[in-house]
Amino acid sequence: MSSIPRDQWYVAAYGREIGREPFGRTVCGEPILFWRTRAGTVTAMSDRCVHRRFPLSQAPSRVVDDQVVCGYHGFTYGADGKCVAVPGQTRVPRTARLTAYPAVEQDSFVWVWIGDPAKADAATIPRAPWLVSPEYTTVSGMEPLKARFGLLVDNLLDLSHETYLHGGYIGTPEVAATPITTEVDEEAGIVYVSRHMDDAECPPFYAKSTGLSGRIMRWQDIEYTPPCLYKLHSRIAPPGVLPRADGSDPDAFHVEVVYAITPETEHTTHDFWAVARDFALDDQGVSDFLAEQNRTVVLQDVAALDVLEQVIATEPPGYQELSINIDTGGLAARRLLARQAGQSTGGRV
Amino acid sequence: MSSIPRDQWYVAAYGREIGREPFGRTVCGEPILFWRTRAGTVTAMSDRCVHRRFPLSQAPSRVVDDQVVCGYHGFTYGADGKCVAVPGQTRVPRTARLTAYPAVEQDSFVWVWIGDPAKADAATIPRAPWLVSPEYTTVSGMEPLKARFGLLVDNLLDLSHETYLHGGYIGTPEVAATPITTEVDEEAGIVYVSRHMDDAECPPFYAKSTGLSGRIMRWQDIEYTPPCLYKLHSRIAPPGVLPRADGSDPDAFHVEVVYAITPETEHTTHDFWAVARDFALDDQGVSDFLAEQNRTVVLQDVAALDVLEQVIATEPPGYQELSINIDTGGLAARRLLARQAGQSTGGRV
Amino acid sequence: MSSIPRDQWYVAAYGREIGREPFGRTVCGEPILFWRTRAGTVTAMSDRCVHRRFPLSQAPSRVVDDQVVCGYHGFTYGADGKCVAVPGQTRVPRTARLTAYPAVEQDSFVWVWIGDPAKADAATIPRAPWLVSPEYTTVSGMEPLKARFGLLVDNLLDLSHETYLHGGYIGTPEVAATPITTEVDEEAGIVYVSRHMDDAECPPFYAKSTGLSGRIMRWQDIEYTPPCLYKLHSRIAPPGVLPRADGSDPDAFHVEVVYAITPETEHTTHDFWAVARDFALDDQGVSDFLAEQNRTVVLQDVAALDVLEQVIATEPPGYQELSINIDTGGLAARRLLARQAGQSTGGRV
Repeated sequence: MSSIPRDQWYVAAYGREIGREPFGRTVCGEPILFWRTRAGTVTAMSDRCVHRRFPLSQAPSRVVDDQVVCGYHGFTYGADGKCVAVPGQTRVPRTARLTAYPAVEQDSFVWVWIGDPAKADAATIPRAPWLVSPEYTTVSGMEPLKARFGLLVDNLLDLSHETYLHGGYIGTPEVAATPITTEVDEEAGIVYVSRHMDDAECPPFYAKSTGLSGRIMRWQDIEYTPPCLYKLHSRIAPPGVLPRADGSDPDAFHVEVVYAITPETEHTTHDFWAVARDFALDDQGVSDFLAEQNRTVVLQDVAALDVLEQVIATEPPGYQELSINIDTGGLAARRLLARQAGQSTGGRV
Repeated sequence: MSSIPRDQWYVAAYGREIGREPFGRTVCGEPILFWRTRAGTVTAMSDRCVHRRFPLSQAPSRVVDDQVVCGYHGFTYGADGKCVAVPGQTRVPRTARLTAYPAVEQDSFVWVWIGDPAKADAATIPRAPWLVSPEYTTVSGMEPLKARFGLLVDNLLDLSHETYLHGGYIGTPEVAATPITTEVDEEAGIVYVSRHMDDAECPPFYAKSTGLSGRIMRWQDIEYTPPCLYKLHSRIAPPGVLPRADGSDPDAFHVEVVYAITPETEHTTHDFWAVARDFALDDQGVSDFLAEQNRTVVLQDVAALDVLEQVIATEPPGYQELSINIDTGGLAARRLLARQAGQSTGGRV
Repeated sequence: MSSIPRDQWYVAAYGREIGREPFGRTVCGEPILFWRTRAGTVTAMSDRCVHRRFPLSQAPSRVVDDQVVCGYHGFTYGADGKCVAVPGQTRVPRTARLTAYPAVEQDSFVWVWIGDPAKADAATIPRAPWLVSPEYTTVSGMEPLKARFGLLVDNLLDLSHETYLHGGYIGTPEVAATPITTEVDEEAGIVYVSRHMDDAECPPFYAKSTGLSGRIMRWQDIEYTPPCLYKLHSRIAPPGVLPRADGSDPDAFHVEVVYAITPETEHTTHDFWAVARDFALDDQGVSDFLAEQNRTVVLQDVAALDVLEQVIATEPPGYQELSINIDTGGLAARRLLARQAGQSTGGRV
């Protein structure tokens, strides 16, 4: 059985990626075609012509008005996936229709429902409001990963690796040294992992962007909603500066690091990343710096996880890992993902 | 079971490709060595030394007089495949012999029989006489296809794709819009597909080569003899100009477009193409133009079919296509090919 | 069952390759980490962190003092493979230990035992003393081979291929033409193949290095100790010059050509090669010439064997080779290797 949960919402793209040209992306093994109607709505339908399976995202396929025309024999489909014209005859077969996918544009992402469409409920899509809030400035990107999505979940749930894999960027000795606390909301299906460092070295990522020098308070509060959305609430402040009693926190810097972890296939992943900050909102230099730094950090992860995927591909069956305290969050995430995958019912297998 | 018919003739090469150097090409999964004797005859034998399977087409293997010498240990074979010398001893093992393939050079092609050699009958090789006729001038080539041969059969039997995939070269709106007529000669095993456009736009391919401008009559008469030989009899004339009662047709332009569709393996194909014309016989500019145009068109097909092969490789089992009227010829071809494959008996499996 | 014998010593590297940086090499399918302690001892342990399998030879993993630190989460191991530190907690799990491999540095090679460590006996490692003898000068290297190790064994046991594959370097007509004598020491497990050419052309490899011109005596005495060590005792002398009655041989040139044949995986091989000579000891020009020549010869073998591996990958099951007298040594080697593989017991499967 696949380890990828179905009957779930996944981020397929940033809204900015979808325009008036056909755009193809594979999500959970399903090739999906996206394009935007003249009214601006994002469509999502199967990226295979019903006739001879030519990808509708592939040139010379093209969008004309509110229809997409196959580049092989000219089968033409409307925004709902229904075929409206075929070559050499006026009658269009009744069954000629592309599978349509429920799609929602929200928080800068295009979300798509994989599985039984009858179960799709847009109200259950997890939120990342900072990415489109005027009170935050966001930089973002996506890196392709040649590794199964579970390896990225492991990676992000255990930030002790920052000290080793991301030293000189976001890692300092305190991250690996400081114990974590983990909580699981079984009903909501959310994993929380917190690491509060009250007296820590300030890594370049935060020193250059906030202007702080010397020791800092650094709080990392992870909130992972399997399968797709990961949020790291990062709080940076001078030592001893705490949030006020009323909940406001004007003397700290807040960075919301958001990942969308989308399986492309069983062994490849779309690694969407975004960094939203509530300071230096109009400072392009800070935006450029954080974008370059975070992309570098993501590519360090990509290099390591691509290696791990190859390692797994060549290791004998029954290989055993050894887990310790830092893995509590990752193991909880695996458990929730396995539960979701076991409950999957919808769509093609 | 393989979808590739055996006990059949296939085009392995153009005669011009075979000379006094060893030449290797795989046909229907069988690696075959070709070379030309001093008398000019094309030989065809297994491209694997009987000793340690080194390919005899691979340097430093070489042809010396009328023998081929293996580049690994020097096993030496005559034009009939019989081993005549081995290293370190004078006795040559009696069983040391390369499998020989029936081969015929005809109509510019080298045909080779795949299957039981006892069934090979050169008289049954389908003909394409224009390719060597003094009344025609021919340009030709071969493009490797990373797709199963059936996808190329589908492609060539349904020319409605010219409008979309080859627009600006040979495609105009009328090709996709005009219905076809299909006939199958079950006994001879030939599929005929005709599309007669009596008032059509003249595509650049024919406008520049014939000098016609404005509207034209354009007749496409396909004759496919599975598995290998495909002929498109193309007739271009000013509107209203018909062949005469005596069968002559002096006021039309005739182009014979010939494809040899040769499986290299289950998933790759040799796509031989030739364009013979009965006009502008000595005009090198027209030859250069048609060669460049047709090669471009073939490469557009190659790009599309290579994508389809990848699509098939990743799709779930049981995928269903939808067929319409334009597919009548292609479906008939599939049926004849399946019948041929089911009747195959000869040679290795 | 694997064709690779276990419970055997294999050459993993030259000693010069191992220093204070982590060095990874796969031997018989097992990824092994090597590094040298401050005292100079070569360590050998599993190249997979016990935590999340990150390769310890992969940056940013690093050696610090006499420990190796994983580049992913910082798990730290001593020279014996025992884990001594983990992130986020002071207690180190008792079972956290890398598999250690018996390793011996000898005759310029690092030998490693693959299989049951209880059976490892360093006294049984075959010797190649010339490679570190002050009476010889040695050039050496290693070329990666994309072919199973058995193809290299075949190649080296049958030197008749020198005439064809290595003409112009080490091959002359006499090699393929001269019969061999083969002996097998079943108890010691050694295959001997001898070819004594008493009146032979001098190939460039020996002409330029020895200064001999004209005809030569050329003796090739192969001694192969399966699975890994192959020695070719090569004696070059003017015609009629024999070793003296006391066993000394001052008027001949001696070259010891040593190969270590180490399976990397079932289908790839490390091809270690060394050429030791007892003449022109301090002549850098001769060293450079022999190194360049032998590397070229090895790369000719690599090209041929890489082709053979691809041939085998695509041939139908049950393919039959034809063997003749020159193959006697190679067939004996295959038999000893099969016996070793059948007796293998140790380690992972």
